[in-house]
Amino acid sequence: MWIIEEISVLKLGSFDSISWLGLVFWLGLSLAAGWIGSHFQPGEWYKHLVQPALTPPSWVFGPVWTILYILMGTAAWLVWQRHGLSGAILPLGLFIIQLILNALWSYLFFGIRDPGLAFLDIAALWLTIMATLIAFRQYHPLAGQLLLPYLIWVTFAAYLNLQFWRLNG
Amino acid sequence: MWIIEEISVLKLGSFDSISWLGLVFWLGLSLAAGWIGSHFQPGEWYKHLVQPALTPPSWVFGPVWTILYILMGTAAWLVWQRHGLSGAILPLGLFIIQLILNALWSYLFFGIRDPGLAFLDIAALWLTIMATLIAFRQYHPLAGQLLLPYLIWVTFAAYLNLQFWRLNG
Repeated sequence: MWIIEEISVLKLGSFDSISWLGLVFWLGLSLAAGWIGSHFQPGEWYKHLVQPALTPPSWVFGPVWTILYILMGTAAWLVWQRHGLSGAILPLGLFIIQLILNALWSYLFFGIRDPGLAFLDIAALWLTIMATLIAFRQYHPLAGQLLLPYLIWVTFAAYLNLQFWRLNG
Repeated sequence: MWIIEEISVLKLGSFDSISWLGLVFWLGLSLAAGWIGSHFQPGEWYKHLVQPALTPPSWVFGPVWTILYILMGTAAWLVWQRHGLSGAILPLGLFIIQLILNALWSYLFFGIRDPGLAFLDIAALWLTIMATLIAFRQYHPLAGQLLLPYLIWVTFAAYLNLQFWRLNG
């Protein structure tokens, strides 16, 4: 019986209260990056820029980014849950760096209104997301997959940023 | 050994591929309600209404609603996962009804611009969410808790709707 109980605890252990707190932490950290970025909103300045082809209406960005922050927070949680912070310091370190570059973009584009500097930031962000995705895949395959929509969206966002820069330079 | 393996399968069974497909289905269904509602956006008409006290800036609604749709989809998934569709037809039926009332609200308020009719809808929505929450709690306590932020937000939204109606009637 003790073997059975031990296994039972192990299996349940993957969804205990520490694990739930971890989920809240990683989701909260990711959404916090979005919340910081949301202090810099597109205003009249943005509206009067020449808009690149394929620019979505402004209301699209809130829901899309919220879903992406939840996906990336879930991915980081999966890696952390399986390996711990010290066991996954490289992928989780990369993850934190990309979060900072992510929040910084809104400040550079909408805050100080510098599309050129914002493009440098989003290029660095793209590379860091790619590195995080590759690292995550080695630690938890599903976590890597969860970053794929994020990478695709940032590819699209980088195109928009480049075009805003070129068309309004 | 066969007992150990059976337990292992049972525990893993709660996160098999059918379960993941179910999560995608319930999240997708909930987000679809938001997507349908998003076809009716606040435009110039809304901007020129007398705004009630505490009205948040428009960009707040996208992220908040996205989080609420994800929470409610997760809640429905938990109930479905534990009891199946036939075993939880009452709570999941209530859940579908509240989703329809939810999407309908955007049509009534922003589509045909009738704050009075929209208020009737949101009052019915509030009652249906309350009934869904009570039913969910009996089938899966965590699922009930996940609906609490939604109920609180709709309480606030109903106040805003009522004030928009009174101030612009």
